[in-house]
This record gives sequence, C-alpha cells and structure tokens, in this order.
Amino acid sequence: MHKKPQRESIQFADQKQEFNKRPTKISRRSLSRSISQSSTDSYGSAASYTDSSDDETSPRDKQQKNSKGNADFCIKNIKQADFGRREIEIAEQEMPALMALRKRAQGEKPLAGAKIVGCTHITAQTAVLMETLSALGAQCRWAACNIYSTQNEVAAALAEGGFSVFAWKGESEDDFWWCIDRCVNVEGWQPNMILDDGGDLTHWIYKKYPSMFKKIKGIVEESVTGVHRLYQLSKAGKLCVPAMNVNDSVTKQKFDNLYCCRESILDGLKRTTDVMFGGKQVVVCGYGEVGKGCCAALKAMGSIVYVTEIDPICALQACFQGFSFAFISLLLYVVSVGNKNVVVREYMDRMKNGCIVCNMGHSNTEIDVASLRTPELTWERVRSQVDHVIWPDGKRIVLLAEGRLLNLSCSTVPTFVLSITATTQALALIELYNAPEARYKQDVYLLPKKMDEYVASLHLPTFDAHLTELSDEQAKYLGLNKNGPFKPNYYRSAAA
Amino acid sequence: MHKKPQRESIQFADQKQEFNKRPTKISRRSLSRSISQSSTDSYGSAASYTDSSDDETSPRDKQQKNSKGNADFCIKNIKQADFGRREIEIAEQEMPALMALRKRAQGEKPLAGAKIVGCTHITAQTAVLMETLSALGAQCRWAACNIYSTQNEVAAALAEGGFSVFAWKGESEDDFWWCIDRCVNVEGWQPNMILDDGGDLTHWIYKKYPSMFKKIKGIVEESVTGVHRLYQLSKAGKLCVPAMNVNDSVTKQKFDNLYCCRESILDGLKRTTDVMFGGKQVVVCGYGEVGKGCCAALKAMGSIVYVTEIDPICALQACFQGFSFAFISLLLYVVSVGNKNVVVREYMDRMKNGCIVCNMGHSNTEIDVASLRTPELTWERVRSQVDHVIWPDGKRIVLLAEGRLLNLSCSTVPTFVLSITATTQALALIELYNAPEARYKQDVYLLPKKMDEYVASLHLPTFDAHLTELSDEQAKYLGLNKNGPFKPNYYRSAAA
Amino acid sequence: MHKKPQRESIQFADQKQEFNKRPTKISRRSLSRSISQSSTDSYGSAASYTDSSDDETSPRDKQQKNSKGNADFCIKNIKQADFGRREIEIAEQEMPALMALRKRAQGEKPLAGAKIVGCTHITAQTAVLMETLSALGAQCRWAACNIYSTQNEVAAALAEGGFSVFAWKGESEDDFWWCIDRCVNVEGWQPNMILDDGGDLTHWIYKKYPSMFKKIKGIVEESVTGVHRLYQLSKAGKLCVPAMNVNDSVTKQKFDNLYCCRESILDGLKRTTDVMFGGKQVVVCGYGEVGKGCCAALKAMGSIVYVTEIDPICALQACFQGFSFAFISLLLYVVSVGNKNVVVREYMDRMKNGCIVCNMGHSNTEIDVASLRTPELTWERVRSQVDHVIWPDGKRIVLLAEGRLLNLSCSTVPTFVLSITATTQALALIELYNAPEARYKQDVYLLPKKMDEYVASLHLPTFDAHLTELSDEQAKYLGLNKNGPFKPNYYRSAAA
Amino acid sequence: MHKKPQRESIQFADQKQEFNKRPTKISRRSLSRSISQSSTDSYGSAASYTDSSDDETSPRDKQQKNSKGNADFCIKNIKQADFGRREIEIAEQEMPALMALRKRAQGEKPLAGAKIVGCTHITAQTAVLMETLSALGAQCRWAACNIYSTQNEVAAALAEGGFSVFAWKGESEDDFWWCIDRCVNVEGWQPNMILDDGGDLTHWIYKKYPSMFKKIKGIVEESVTGVHRLYQLSKAGKLCVPAMNVNDSVTKQKFDNLYCCRESILDGLKRTTDVMFGGKQVVVCGYGEVGKGCCAALKAMGSIVYVTEIDPICALQACFQGFSFAFISLLLYVVSVGNKNVVVREYMDRMKNGCIVCNMGHSNTEIDVASLRTPELTWERVRSQVDHVIWPDGKRIVLLAEGRLLNLSCSTVPTFVLSITATTQALALIELYNAPEARYKQDVYLLPKKMDEYVASLHLPTFDAHLTELSDEQAKYLGLNKNGPFKPNYYRSAAA
Repeated sequence: MHKKPQRESIQFADQKQEFNKRPTKISRRSLSRSISQSSTDSYGSAASYTDSSDDETSPRDKQQKNSKGNADFCIKNIKQADFGRREIEIAEQEMPALMALRKRAQGEKPLAGAKIVGCTHITAQTAVLMETLSALGAQCRWAACNIYSTQNEVAAALAEGGFSVFAWKGESEDDFWWCIDRCVNVEGWQPNMILDDGGDLTHWIYKKYPSMFKKIKGIVEESVTGVHRLYQLSKAGKLCVPAMNVNDSVTKQKFDNLYCCRESILDGLKRTTDVMFGGKQVVVCGYGEVGKGCCAALKAMGSIVYVTEIDPICALQACFQGFSFAFISLLLYVVSVGNKNVVVREYMDRMKNGCIVCNMGHSNTEIDVASLRTPELTWERVRSQVDHVIWPDGKRIVLLAEGRLLNLSCSTVPTFVLSITATTQALALIELYNAPEARYKQDVYLLPKKMDEYVASLHLPTFDAHLTELSDEQAKYLGLNKNGPFKPNYYRSAAA
Repeated sequence: MHKKPQRESIQFADQKQEFNKRPTKISRRSLSRSISQSSTDSYGSAASYTDSSDDETSPRDKQQKNSKGNADFCIKNIKQADFGRREIEIAEQEMPALMALRKRAQGEKPLAGAKIVGCTHITAQTAVLMETLSALGAQCRWAACNIYSTQNEVAAALAEGGFSVFAWKGESEDDFWWCIDRCVNVEGWQPNMILDDGGDLTHWIYKKYPSMFKKIKGIVEESVTGVHRLYQLSKAGKLCVPAMNVNDSVTKQKFDNLYCCRESILDGLKRTTDVMFGGKQVVVCGYGEVGKGCCAALKAMGSIVYVTEIDPICALQACFQGFSFAFISLLLYVVSVGNKNVVVREYMDRMKNGCIVCNMGHSNTEIDVASLRTPELTWERVRSQVDHVIWPDGKRIVLLAEGRLLNLSCSTVPTFVLSITATTQALALIELYNAPEARYKQDVYLLPKKMDEYVASLHLPTFDAHLTELSDEQAKYLGLNKNGPFKPNYYRSAAA
Repeated sequence: MHKKPQRESIQFADQKQEFNKRPTKISRRSLSRSISQSSTDSYGSAASYTDSSDDETSPRDKQQKNSKGNADFCIKNIKQADFGRREIEIAEQEMPALMALRKRAQGEKPLAGAKIVGCTHITAQTAVLMETLSALGAQCRWAACNIYSTQNEVAAALAEGGFSVFAWKGESEDDFWWCIDRCVNVEGWQPNMILDDGGDLTHWIYKKYPSMFKKIKGIVEESVTGVHRLYQLSKAGKLCVPAMNVNDSVTKQKFDNLYCCRESILDGLKRTTDVMFGGKQVVVCGYGEVGKGCCAALKAMGSIVYVTEIDPICALQACFQGFSFAFISLLLYVVSVGNKNVVVREYMDRMKNGCIVCNMGHSNTEIDVASLRTPELTWERVRSQVDHVIWPDGKRIVLLAEGRLLNLSCSTVPTFVLSITATTQALALIELYNAPEARYKQDVYLLPKKMDEYVASLHLPTFDAHLTELSDEQAKYLGLNKNGPFKPNYYRSAAA
Repeated sequence: MHKKPQRESIQFADQKQEFNKRPTKISRRSLSRSISQSSTDSYGSAASYTDSSDDETSPRDKQQKNSKGNADFCIKNIKQADFGRREIEIAEQEMPALMALRKRAQGEKPLAGAKIVGCTHITAQTAVLMETLSALGAQCRWAACNIYSTQNEVAAALAEGGFSVFAWKGESEDDFWWCIDRCVNVEGWQPNMILDDGGDLTHWIYKKYPSMFKKIKGIVEESVTGVHRLYQLSKAGKLCVPAMNVNDSVTKQKFDNLYCCRESILDGLKRTTDVMFGGKQVVVCGYGEVGKGCCAALKAMGSIVYVTEIDPICALQACFQGFSFAFISLLLYVVSVGNKNVVVREYMDRMKNGCIVCNMGHSNTEIDVASLRTPELTWERVRSQVDHVIWPDGKRIVLLAEGRLLNLSCSTVPTFVLSITATTQALALIELYNAPEARYKQDVYLLPKKMDEYVASLHLPTFDAHLTELSDEQAKYLGLNKNGPFKPNYYRSAAA
C-alpha cells in the first residue's frame, strides 16, 4: 500500500509561496480549465445533483471499497457510481474518436505496459479518456487538477470500474496535494508517463520524487500555465524528459477558439441575461480567433457588431467582413482579447444605461473590475453570475461573472470539442510512449502535423464527411505522401 | 368589501366539463402562455428564489396587508415585495415603449376613468404593463391566467404598490376561479374594460355576471384560444361588446415567430443538451415563419439544415435560401409546424442513434409521443426536460420536453419581445376605451394598421433607428398620409 | 391575307397624345420590361451578335419567306434562325416548368382551339413560352411590346418554326403599331385570347377592332402599367372580358423581387464598376422586398449596410436583421423604393467623393437626376451606363444607368426567374380559356392560390425538392385539402 | 541614346529553349497575371476602346514623341493619352495607400536616387504605382511582362507624362524581349533596383548584362514563377543581390485569395452564364482559402454547397461551417485547388445535364480538359469563354474558359485588391533601397511583418477604421512594441 503522508505535513517552503500567489496562478491557469466552472455553474449540469449531499465527513476519513472489494481510491461517495456511469455513457456518444481508438485497440495495445499518472479535471469526458487509455493497455492513477471541478458521481463510476481515483468536489488545498501524492507515492507501482493539466503533478514529482523521472518516458501537458512552466524548465536546462505541448496543437486552437466561442458567446449571454440579440449594438474588443467567432455569431443573430483592434491586418480583415469600428456608448460589450485593462473605468463611465459587459478573453484582466469597487458605485447581485453596478445617476452596467471568462463561467463546453482535446492527449501519450528514443529529446514538442491531421480525421465520420484520396499521379504532382501530412508544419489553415 | 365566495361552492355544471377536458384546453391555449413555463423552468429565473418557501398555509387563509395598510389583494408573501420590485425594474429597461407611453401620459391620461380587470400571466413584464395602465389613468384588478406562472415576488411588489392582485404560484383550480371572482365581484367597483389571456375571465363574467357587460366598453384578448372563443361568440351572435384580437397583429406575429424563434431554438437546445451546433445535421419540419427562424439560426451556427414542407411556395422559398429536402435518419430533429403527428413512430424507428427530437411548433401534437410509450422502449430521464428513449438494440433518441414546445419549456422569452405584445395590449385598451361609439360594433377586430405601426415606432429608439419622413411631394406621389399607415391593411411585410 | 395599313396613316388623335407623353409612359411601364435593356446591354448577350448588321433596309420593305415557304411574318433576318434556335435551347434548360407542361400536353391539349395574340418582349424565354402554348394546342401571332428588346435571331427562329412574328430590334414607333396591327388584322383568323405586356395590344384592339372582344375569352396582363389600365377600364365599367393580373401573383412577386434582386444588385454593380463589396459602406433606401434582397446580398459580401425607411414595421425588421440607420455621406447608394426624389441634390451634395449612386427601385423617379443637369456640374461618360458627375471642388459621384433601374439596365435576369413568370402566364391563359363561363366576370382577377402553388411545384424538381404529403388524418386536422391550396388567398408567406 | 538591338538578332540558344517550353511557363506564371486576361476580356473594360484600331504599323517602326518632345518610349498611340489619364485617375480613387505614400513623400523622398527598371502588366493600377515611385524620388523605365495585357491608352498617358515605357498590346515575342532590352540597355543610365513580375527581366539582365548587378541593390518579385526562379538561383548560390518575395506576403495572400475570390466567383459565373445562384447545387473541390471564399459566397447567395477535401483539418473546418461532402452528379462544379486532374472525365461522364464546370484554382491542370477532346463529344462555342460539351445522349456540360482560371478569364479584379499588392511592391522597393547593407544578404526574403502591418494600416482609412492604440502598460504586459509588429512572423491570422 501507499505511504500515507501526514495530513499537516505537506508544506515546503516554496510551496507556501505558491499558495500565497495562488489567486494569480489560478486565473492564469484557468485557460485550460474549461470544465471546472462550467460543471459547477451550468444549468442542468449533473453536478448539481450531488450538491445537496449533507455528508460532512471528509472522504479521507472514510472507509471506501467498491463492489469488487477494491479500496485503492478516495472519492466522495461510491454509491453514486450508477449515475456517473450514465453520464459517462452520454459523453461517449459525443466522443467518436476515442471510441474509434478503442475499437482499433482490440488488436494492438499501443499502451501495453504504460503506467500513466494523471492530474486533470475529473469529468465524464475525462472518464471516457481514462477508460480509453485503459482499453489501449495502460494502467492509470488519477487526481484532480482543480479543487472544485470534480464530478463526484463520475469519480464514483471510475472507482467502481477499478480506477485508482483520488478526487472530490470541494477539496481543501491540503487535500489537493494529498490526492496527488496518493497517485504517485505507492508501493510496487511507478509511473512511466505523466498526463498533466496545469503542471502541479509534474511540479510535485520534481519536488518530492525526482528520481521517478528515470523511468518516465514523457509528459503530456494540456494547459497554458503548465506549458509555460515546461518551457521555463527547458530553458533552464532542467527538463529531464520529453514533453508534448498539446495546448497549441492546430485542431485544439482552431476548433476550441473559433467554433466553440461562436456558440458559447450566445449561450453564455442567454443563460445569464436572456438578452435579445436581434438589433443589439455590440462592441467586440479584439478580432482574433475568439473575436471572429463572437462577431460571426452575433452578426448572424441580427446584432450590429462593432470591433476594436490593435493589429492592422486583423483590422483589415474585420473591414472585409463588414464590421465597423467601435463607438464607446453601446449596449453590449464583449471582450475577446488576452490583454490587460482593455475595458477601463473611463469607458464604463461613458457606456449607456443597461450595457452588458462580459469577458470572452484569455485571462481575467481584460475588464478593470477593480476600478468599479469604489464607494460611489453600488453593486447589486441580481442573479448568479450577474451584477448590476449602479452609478450615482442611476445608470446600471450589467457585469457578468465579475469579469471572469463568460464561456467558462456561464455556459458549457460541448463534449464534442473536449473530444478533440482528449484525443490529442491520447495520441500524444501513444506517440511519446512508442517513439524510438532518438526521436524526442529533453525538450517541449508540438504534436506532429500528421497526428493533428489524424485527430481531425477521427472526428469526420460524425459528420458523414468522407475525404477525397489523392491519386498516385496527384500525390506526385504535389510532392505529397498520399496519407499526409498535407500541409507543412508551419501552416495554419484559415478559419472561415 | 367583496363577497367572498364559499370555497367549495364555485362549481357550475358546464364548468365541470371544462375542467374535465382541461388538459386539451391547456395545450391549445399554451400558444399565448409564453411566460408560464419559462418562468418556472429557466436557468437563473427569479422564480426559483421563491420555490424553497416551505410555508404551506394557503394564501386564502392568511391575513394580508401591505405596508400602507391596504388588504385588498391575495398573494403568497408580501415580504418578497422588494425582490419583486427589482425584477420589475430590470424588465422596465427592456420595455421602452411602455415607458414612453408613461412619459406621454404625464400630460394626458387616455385611460382616466378606465376600470380594467385583467387575467394574464403575472410576471415582471405584466407588472410593467399594469403600472403603465395605472400611469395612464386606469384602475386595475388582476388575476392569473395560469395556475403555475405567477412570479410570487412580482405579485408581492404589485400588492405593495397598491394593486389588487389575486394570484400565486401553484393555485388549485378552485383557487384559480376564486381569484378571478375576487377581481370582478367587488362592492362599489365595476370594470369597464377587460384584458384577457385565454378567455377564462371573459367566460366567468358571461356565466356569473352577464349584466356587467352593459358597462364594459371592450375586451382585449391575447391568446389563440381566447380569440377562437370570441369568434365563436361573434358567430353565434352572442358577443355583446367589441373585442380586439391582439394575437394576430402584425408586429406580434412577425417578431414573436420569426425573430424570437431564431434565438430560442438555439437557447432551448443548449440549455437542455449542450449540443454543438457546428456541423450538426438537422431536419426542420415546416418552413413557415417559425421554421424560417429556426433554419436561419441553425445554418448560421454551421449546422447542415434540411427541411420538409407541404406547401410548394414555402418549399420553393426554402430552395432559394439554400436548404435541401430531408432524409429521415439525421441527428437533430426540429418540428416547427402546427400539425398532428408530423414525427411518427416510423420515422423515429429509422432515426440515428443519439438523434435529438424537439418541438418548436404551435401545438403539442406534432410529435407522436404516445407511440413511444410502448413496452419495448425504455425511457430514461437524464435531466430536467430531457428523456432518453431507448430502443431494444440500444439506440437512443433524445426527446426534449416530452414533445411539448421547446421554446416555452426550456428557454426564456426575451422581455423585449414581450414588450411588443404588452404595448399592443395597452394600445388596444386605449383605442377601445376612447373610440367613438360608431367605430366598433359587437365584433372581433384586429388592431388598426396605423396602431401596429405605432407599436413598432415606439420600439425603434432602442435601436437608434430613425425613420425617414415623406416630403409633401412624395406623400402625394404615393397617395399616402405622411404619418401613415404606410401599407394597406392586408399587407404582410416580408420577413427577411 | 391581312389588310396592310398604310405606312403613314396609323395616327389617331388620342394616340398622338399617347406618343407625346411617351417618355413618362415608358418609364412607368419599364417594370415589366425586364428583358429589354438587359438583352441589349449585357455582357455576352447574344443580341450583340446581331448589332453589327449593316443592312439598312427596313424589314417592312423586304420579301421574307422561311424555308418552308411561309411568308406570314416580318422580322430582321431569317438567316439567323439557327443561332436563335440555339439560344432557345439554352433557355429551355432553365425553364423546367414549361417543359413539364409540354410533356403533360402530349395527352391533353388544354389550349386546343385557342387563338392567342401576344405582345411581349421577344426573347429566347418568350420563344419557349410560345412554343409551349403551341404544344398545348394554341395558334399564336406575336408582336413586340418594346421597340428595342427583340432578339432578332430568336424572332428568326420563331418565324422559321412557323410562327407569325412581327418584330425586330430598333422599330420606329410607326413600325411598332404596324406590327401590332399585322398580328390582329388578318383575314380568316380572329384571336380569342390576349397575352399582353404593357397594355398596348389591348388598347389597339379597343380602339380599332372593338368588335373582336365578342370572341375573346380573356386577357392576361403582365405589367404594372397594363394592370393599372385594366383596373381603370374595370372601374369605368368598360372592361368587356375577364382579365388576369399575373403581375401580382405571389410567386412572381416573391421570387422576382427578393431573390432576383439579391443576385442582380451584385451583378449590376460589378459589371458597371468592378467595385469591391468587402467593407464598402452602403445605404439602401427602403427595406421592402427589393431592399431586403439588396441588403442581404451586400451584407453577405462584407459590405456595411445602412438603411432608410418610412414604415416603422419594416424599420423594426431592419433592426432585428442587424442593419443600422443611415448617415448620408457614404460610399455606395442603392435606392430600392418606388417613390419620387428619394435621393435629392442636397444629399448628393453631401456624399463622399467616389460615391456610387444607383437605382434598384420600381420607377425611374427615385434619383433626382434632373437636379444634376446644372451648369456647375460636369458630366463625364466613363463607360457604357456609367457617368461621373463632377462637382466644382473635384468631387465625383458615379451615377449608374443615369438613374434608371440598375438590374434592368446593367445585369441580366436569370432565365429561371423568367420561367416562373412565363409559367404563370401560360397557366392564366389555360385557366381563362377553360373556365366555366360563370367563374370569371368582366373584372380583373388574381391567379387562384392553387395555381400559384402549382407554378411553384413545377419548379421544385429542379432543386431535387420533394414535398411532404399530408396524411388524411393531418389534412382533416388542419381542415385542408391534401392537394392544396395550403394557405388562404390573403396569405403572403414570409420571405426569409 | 540606347543601342538599338537588331530586330532579328535577339536569340540566344537557351532562350530558344525557353520559348519552346513557353506554354508551360505561361500557365505557371499566370498566377500573378491577375490583370492580363481580365483587362482584355472584361465587360466595360477600357481596353476594348483601343481594339478597333486598324493601324497595322508596328510601334517599333513609328516615329513617336510626346507633347513635350520626349521620344524615349515606344507605345501604340500617344494620342490616347487623355483617355488613359482618365483611367489612371479612376484607379487612383481605389488605391488610397499609394496616394497616402505620395503625400508623405512631399517631405522625404525615400527613393531619391533610385533608378528602377520594371517589367509588369501595364495597366491603370501599375501607372498609379509608377507615378507614386516617381513622386517618391525614383526614375523608372518600364516594359510589359505579358504580350497581351498592356492597356495602350495607359501606356500613352505614361509616355505623355514623361515615363520611358516600352509596351503595347499584342507584342510579338521578339517585340517582348526588344522592349525589355530597351529598358535596360540605355546609355548613361543604369538601374539600381528591379521590379519584376515573372522573372523575365531579371533573367534578361542575368544573361545579357550580368555586370549590372554590381550596382543593383535588390529585386522585388511579384509572381510565383519569378519567386520560384529566385529560390533556385539562391539554392544554386547564384543570386547576387537580395530579393524580396512579395507574392507570399500575408496581406496579399489573405486578401487576394479569400476576399477577392469570394466576389469573383459570383462575378465570373454571372458574366459567363447568367446562372441563378439561389438553390443551385454546387460542388467546390478543395476547402483552402480560395475554396473558403467560393463556398462562403455561394452559400450566402442561397446555393447548396458541397465540398471535397484531402486534408482532414480543412475537412473538419468545412464540417463546422455547415458544408456537406460531395456527390458527383450536381449542377455546378467549382474547382478551387492547385492540383492536377481533380475533375476527370469519369466524373464529367456522371454529371447531370447542364452542369457548369469551372476552375478557380491555382493552375490550369485541375480540369482534365484534354479528356473531353475526343471524337464522341461535340464542342459548341455558345459565348465567349463558354463551351457546351455535348455527350452522345444529348447531355451538355457547360465548360467555362476552357478550364482556365475563371476569375482571371471572365471577371475583373477590383482595383482595391491590386492596391494592396502595389503598395507591398512600393514598400519592398523602399525597404531594399534604404536598408543598411548588413540587413539583407544575397537571399530571398519575405516582407517584414511590420511592413505587412503597415500596408494593411494604409488601407484602413478607406473603411473609416481606426485602430486602438496600446497603452504603455498594456504593451508592457503583452511584451509588444506599441507600434507593432503585433504578431510573430510565423503567425497567420485566421480568415473568418
């Protein structure tokens, strides 16, 4: 069995600092945390089912066992396993690529022998990923990368299914590290692959069990923050295994940003404000990929959309797509850039009564919310995630999610989009695990173009989309392999 | 004071029949019940605030008094008045036309002397209407037209403001008629105008107090069912006052159906299923105005939309707009016609696994839900308003709202759209109250074109839209009055 | 043979007046003259082929005979028959409904015995109509309704095929009436049906051969002017046969105006100015059906579109579709209303340098071109149909088609749209010819709804669009006949 | 004066080879020849004005002098100068960036001392570029890069304005090289900059006057072929000056391909076939940037668009945008890829009667036209650029431009798009001319990101688009210079 760390003891000097600056870190990391808040807040989310649980005993203090007698897990309530299984089954229907990988794995087991330790959001979609990794031959141990985002019933279903899961919704920060430690610090089992989302698991092993890296073949990292940390390690010459940056793979970027935001901007606004889009005057700050998605959706719904931009090339694209440039005093304000203080107090002073302000950007610094925390302004919470900020003359600004990211706070992310990400993670694990030693050094890599194309191709059958195949003659004419890759690595396909 | 009817006594022979066939009647009436279910079900709805009330005493058995000592009302809980007032204030911001009418009423009081008895959904939007009628000079007494749709906190705010309101969420059917009776059966006060939604109030007066019609100047009716009843009365020669059919006014029809459904189809689907629209294959049955709205929205979100139609002219329009005609086995099924058994069991037998089926139509008969209630199919409730119907081979159909109208069951209706309807009601009351006697006979009328145009014009400032005025020369050339009406009565402006 | 009227003699007192006011009359009639100018001006038009003909002899002075020896026609040049036949064959491919009618006519000949005299544009599309009428059993004699619009090679093909055609491009006004007279004034043949476009043929028979109406079963009239004349005759009690107004049939109005203008606005602007649409700021004056088509197309191409409106309901629709209301000083001005002096000199004084001004409206009075014919402004013809009007400070306004209708002057009308009109004409002829006497009185009628639906249904196979059929149960539920009509006569289906 | 090469003498061994393979070369070069064919073929093109010239004397045999007595040029007819000047003035209105450069040049002359020899299409747009270069301080001598594309009247206006232009429409190939030689081989003047389009000028200097490169500071090359040649020279170590590849600059690629094709697909189809887009079933082969533009435009016009793709990522994008994957037997076929035999005979055998086939791709090999040149198929030329290919059973395929590029053959390219390219050329010349010696080596370079952004920014005022400026704080936060570049060099902004 594992060595149980003492409850109060897990505190290193540097880690305390970490906790002290935690608010910042969390906000920067939240980019990759697409599931966390949405699973808590969203309408109809299954998670709410488990909220009413009035069982106040800490999971760490409970005796837990699944129906087969296995006790190597720690979750909220194993009785919710059936409900969690149903949620997982629903998710499976929207994750065709992983299901396809499972089918192929009936013959070959590309992850046979892999011992994967993971630290991600624990949701139905993650469960589909974990069960796929298992079907491909891997053993898995898992902790949550966020103290709020665990779907307890899903964790129960995983535990019931034999996975060593250590996670529950509402962990304390001490619980958080305890769970991670339980994943790695176990007798007779040592991980050879890491799947991380935020870098905490990697960080923990670096600090506590550095010798484990001798057996580890690679790290797959999902989040902006985690990737940033890896690049810093690499620069400092301290990265001791190859790492795959899946956050920046083409499919993830294109589909997550453009197409997902095109839907979630509408969803987030409706769920919070029930606003009518038709005829609404909207400013979208920033015409990058997120901004393009927001603009396209709002225009299609009959809004009159204005943009702002700093980059003349993106600005010229906005012109050709028929967007005007912004006045300040409009009715709906959407911020879609990753920047600081894009919407400052001065602008908000000049906005019209009733203007809705929200953030679809990359961080939480775009709206200068701090400048609204002044005595002359009154805050009124009118709904969950919705505040009226009231000026002395009675003018109201409707602020959503206190300036945090609207799509993560107030809408859900379609499972199909998460499917793309999860498939990318699975393939990255397979690639790192099976690659000949010479292929990857102690550095951070992007997923090879060809695997990016493979992720896309696995999602095409859902749409009844069939690819055209190059003839030998055509392939020769174009100088391409008939099976791809079809574009150079630097290529970024246009989005329209 | 009023004569309190004895609790068990309000039962006429014909009324009993009415109750017996109630399920049918409700379903037919639900067209105009845009607020009822949405206020109960919707995410973030204020109504949920009051759900947890565990006060089981019937409002009829409570002593109630507002802060000024007035007791001529009967609601759930006067203490919720402050919360209700905030909801009303939020609604006011999206109802510019009524607010504009109030401003104009500072000089003239077009409803001075009017005694209006009303029976509608009691929501924040209705409250804005009632307070506008009051500002225009009218006295109002009000009951709910639906036993579930009352927002208790709004009723409280109205009662606190001095209105005689008789309504609460969760009335029994006996309560329902008791409340209506309390509105009309009061000493020293007799209504001279009726505002009805569904025809129950009108029916009650016909049955119990027919002599009241001597003083009544007119009826304004909002719903399909109510209008239908009025036409029947008219045909039978029994309509004894003029009635205004506001359900069929142009602005209501165009904006409610096309533009509102364009938004609510997306909203309803997201809130129930979190489905991704991009690339989804969808069949929309019926390319009338509702179908046009659904098709436009889904196409704009990247869905591949197929239609079915029975009318070749609408079908040709669908062709020119780029819609194909349907295959049966697709992934998302939207029904948008008012018809019976449009989606029959045979179709559902052939649908793909995971197909979502929902109804945006006019009645509840479009999807043959009864045919799914057979032993070989398993029903599984996966979320509120979402059932999986499972075929013996494991295929699942996702049925929303048990086949009832999606937009009323699972999404909200924007206040701005309700504003158009409420303004039409207010203008119809003003018109009937002030019209010279000769203008309207004992018949059912549509709102005059010019007033329809006026309703529209009152909503234009919200969009910063300014009309062009005809010059004298142009007006003469076109043979029009410079102030309208600009189109003949029969004209129905195209929707694009 | 016919009595040849003497060349100089065809001048009645009232007719002279007619000629004097001709410019006005032509402009009002031009609505229905969709083919005339386009066939002369358009790129790639076959008509240009025959322009270079330097044969200056008047057709009236030539001996003409087709290959079978028939000489009962008068056209430009019988040798062009082969070329004309090819043009007709091309048109046939886009006129599926007429071809379908021909097929059905193999059994029944609904126009057997019909003697139709026609006066319309003589183009390839008209030829398909005439040959269809012939296939349905009718005899036809035909003249041109416009002195410029005849495609000489098509007239040649018709003459070669045995039709008595009297028309050529570039008739004098005397020729015009002579040709009409040759159609009707012929020994041993008397028309029993009239197909008119503009009312000149009808007028001529009224004036010269009123007794012919004894045998005439009806008039089918295509143009606004002609319809207007018929209604005046009807009002004055002088209409002595039934007349069918096909100009106002639903299919024609919807498809001609909305969908056709959606394409021709782009086409007309490109052919004249090669302007880039992306990012162009455009004002569209009037948001009726033509305006809706123009706005939709320009918005889709990335233009920023502003509108003006006088009717608040149309204005509110524009709001919900996301259009702003206009500033004056923009770059592209499209006029889409039927009105007078919509764009006045004052506006043009304030437009930006380079602004393009064009007219998509119903008449030629929308742009006050007369106000630009002043000494301080310089006109420069830069291309066919394109003038620069230059202000003293060097500012240039680009005026298209001298303010006449852009789509008729500078773009072509797709044959498929003309197919709808031609089918409507054919069905109107069949209906009037076969209707029991009691059905139509001496009045002006619209095409019955059911036939409108039939016209639409004949065009659906082109799009592979198949209608859904009502079940008996559904038809009963809806109170409809399974074969239509599906909508009441007053219904105008929304356009979106 | 220049040494006049003898007329028959200009034939080097390797050059003959060049001529022998010319057909291939021309087709590969045609990518950059956006003006050539369009200026010849397009409706309303000014070029047609000069076609009728029956003066058969070769310009080389004429005495030519402009009004100031200058004779250092060789063109068709100096008398057309006024007409040409008007064309140039029209072009100036759509080329705001060059006009802005001229204004700035009133102070500084960044090209003072530059002696530019150019070889490009000679059109109104080029004239605006040349006169801008002149205003910036440069001396220019110019030849045509294509024997057909010269607008004679523009050449006349340039000659009248003092430019040494050697070009006319309809040069022989001998004339072609003679003109180039006249540009460079002149006493007392030696070029120090080259602006080339296709590489012929560069090639000529390499062959004949290699020593000239000692004084040459750089080459700016516009075309795919020319760039390809330069890269080959560079690889072979033979490139002796820096060269700027402007063909691949971001602004050119994005705006030329996506936005320009979005408009020209519609324009080209209308001008050739007058086809109605609404409801037309279309296959677009290839969903790259050109394909995206075509798909977006056709969908917006109501066509039903299907795609084919070989690359799964582009295919998945097509799915999310709502495009289905293709059947073969549709009505309109658009080819948008650069590949060989995309549309083969087998497909065309299966297409429906009346199917239109055209090529929007990168080369002329996409449609296997050769396979249609067989005895059993009949070709019928029905219009300029339009052939009917007729199968034995009567089926017709409508082939446009004999499979060559539709947008170059049958539509015009908006001046505004050419403005972007011309501005890029001007800036590349300025950059190479002024760069410190160390900056550029003997290699091929892309325009620096910052200058790309500058090109875009110079075109924004046309749209009234104003950029937002970064605050110092924001710039620091993002790690950017406030004046750009705003994106890394590898960044390719999404297109939507």
